[in-house]
Order: sequence, then C-alpha cells, then structure tokens
Amino acid sequence: MTSPFDRLAQTLARLPGLGRRSAERAALALVRRDDGLVETLMDALREARENIRLCSQCGALTTIGQDPCRICSDVSRDAALLCVVEEPSDILALERSGGYHGRYHALLGKLSPSRISKPSELRLRELVRRVESEGITEIILAVSTDMEGDATASYIADLFRNSSVRLTRLAFGLPADSGVGYSDPLTLKRAIGGRQSL
Amino acid sequence: MTSPFDRLAQTLARLPGLGRRSAERAALALVRRDDGLVETLMDALREARENIRLCSQCGALTTIGQDPCRICSDVSRDAALLCVVEEPSDILALERSGGYHGRYHALLGKLSPSRISKPSELRLRELVRRVESEGITEIILAVSTDMEGDATASYIADLFRNSSVRLTRLAFGLPADSGVGYSDPLTLKRAIGGRQSL
Repeated sequence: MTSPFDRLAQTLARLPGLGRRSAERAALALVRRDDGLVETLMDALREARENIRLCSQCGALTTIGQDPCRICSDVSRDAALLCVVEEPSDILALERSGGYHGRYHALLGKLSPSRISKPSELRLRELVRRVESEGITEIILAVSTDMEGDATASYIADLFRNSSVRLTRLAFGLPADSGVGYSDPLTLKRAIGGRQSL
Repeated sequence: MTSPFDRLAQTLARLPGLGRRSAERAALALVRRDDGLVETLMDALREARENIRLCSQCGALTTIGQDPCRICSDVSRDAALLCVVEEPSDILALERSGGYHGRYHALLGKLSPSRISKPSELRLRELVRRVESEGITEIILAVSTDMEGDATASYIADLFRNSSVRLTRLAFGLPADSGVGYSDPLTLKRAIGGRQSL
C-alpha cells in the first residue's frame, strides 16, 4: 500500500535531476508549506498542459495558438540557415545569445550507442524534408560536445553527404569567463586545434 | 510577460534541490513527455493536498482521518521517551531503523543564526507543554550534526535547564559501512572522543 506522500515523492522522482532523496524532500516541502505552493504548481501544470505545444515545424516550445512558432513565422529571419539542436530549451539558450538569426530544428534527443534513442526516434526525417523544401544552404549543428553529440553530428553528416548543403558545427574552445587552468584536457586540445589568428 | 513554460519552471525552482537549470529541465520533461506524467503529478498533488496533514501532537506526516498520528496513538510505545527531530521525514527514517519505541516531536525546522528560522517559528512551545503534561522523563535530541543542529540542541537544553527531565543527544561517530579513510576530520575527532570500551 503506497501512502499519498510516497506517491507524490515517487512521481517527483520521475523528473530529471531529482533522485529518491531529493524527491522526498521536495514532496515534504510541498506538503509542509502553507504558502500555496501546491496550488501554484498545480495551476502551472494545468496551464502548461493546456497551452504549451512543440512547434510542428521546428520543435521549439510554443503556445497552442502559435503554430508554427514565433521564430518559424518570422519572415525577417534568414531562411537559408538552419540550426539543429537537441532540445527545445537549446533554442531558448541560443536565442538569449543573440548570435543567430536563422531558423531552428530540434531533434528532441540525441543519438546514443548505449542508450535507447534510435535514429527513428529523432526528428531526422523532418530535417531532411525541411532541407529539401525550404531552400536551406547551411545546416549548423549545435549538438552536445559529448560522445552522443558526436554520434548525432556524424549521423547527420552522413544523411547530407550527397547534398549540396553546407554542414557546420559550433566551434569548440574555451568557454567565456574561464581559462586554461580551469579547463579539462579535451577542451584544451580542441581549443589549440581551433586556434585563430589575431 | 512570463510564458506558461517559464511559470512552470519558476514554480519548480521553488522546490528544495532544484536550481534554475534543473527546474527548466524538469519543466521540459513534463511538457515533452506523452506518458501522462503531468496528469500523474497533478493527481498526486491533489491527493496530497486533500489527504496529508501533520499530526497536531508530534508533527509527523499523517492522513486527514488520523490525528493524532499512528505513533502518537500507539499505547504500546514508551510514553516517557520523546525524540525531538527537525523534520517529519526524520521520523520516517528513525522508524525504519527499528531502534526506537518512544514518541516523537518534530520541530519543523532548526535554529540558525544566519538564516530566517527563529525560535518562535519552531514547535518549541508545544515541546515544553508536552514535556510538562505527558510525564516525559527523557528527551532524545535527534537533530542535525551541523552548526544549526548544535544551536538547536543547546537552545533546547537551556529550555529544560531547571527541569528534572533527562536530555540526551544521538551518538556522534562513524556511520555504518564506512571507515577511517572515508571520514572527515570532525567525524573522526568526535568518534575518538566518544570511543567505547569493548
């Protein structure tokens, strides 16, 4: 027999980033607090369920009345550039950077030899279709700089091997506000390999 | 203007253990998954709000029809022993240990010079009242072994300085399945100080 408290804790533990113990603490905070946090969370969940959708074109987060999303609908953006990301949240991060003015395509995952995601589960077919139909000349791969990101990048490179589209990937190197002393060996090796003339 | 997604992420970030970035990831998981996680979480929250209460006597988690809680109502337990804990979840942990058969009193917090909790916000008045009225002969302090726990323990010791009740605190020492090589200096110092004859 599971108690209501255990049920809440077990449900919270299904969220990424919450282990069993932290889910128990979060459940306790929800149960203990008199500041209406339970109601606020229920309202936010209801609103999210009713309003948030993924853009049917690029996979970005959008609201139910706005599909295609704001970015896909924005005619001032460079339609020849397509930036491929893993998650809708990556689009938010890139938009905050202010460094990109093309469109996006979220794969909703990345390839992984060891885990469950297979090429058929990513939005790759949609990517090929978009590149063919939207006059895209450059695909910028903004995937993770880990093994799965590398696997995803080379899989996509293979997909477009016989196409005239240009394929690029975000630069490797030192992050901002960091330095040689704070960087791991692989980052340093890549930063050296990608060094630029002054 | 906050979007429904941001609102969900910001609400999740109010839970302990979830920072801004992990709250964003959790919100994304809730939005993206088609497995009904949002509904399950809403149900669990509703059930928790409707059913879970804190025992009016000891502060343990209980259900709405069971106040005083199962432990407070259990006449087979030693009513002369009162174990003071910080959180209702500490009671669950101590019950799982099987090493205690008295009653509990949850303070719902601990004292902290640097943070917000003041003596008046803890259930200390209730503690004094219970010790006076329930014939308690020993108070076992099962508070944290950190600065706040120490502050809480000495505050409570002061409260009962002129009382005949015996005050004890859980033993300090090495945790189970550990060893000298894994322990921090303070734990070792306390373990040496509390060493026991064989």
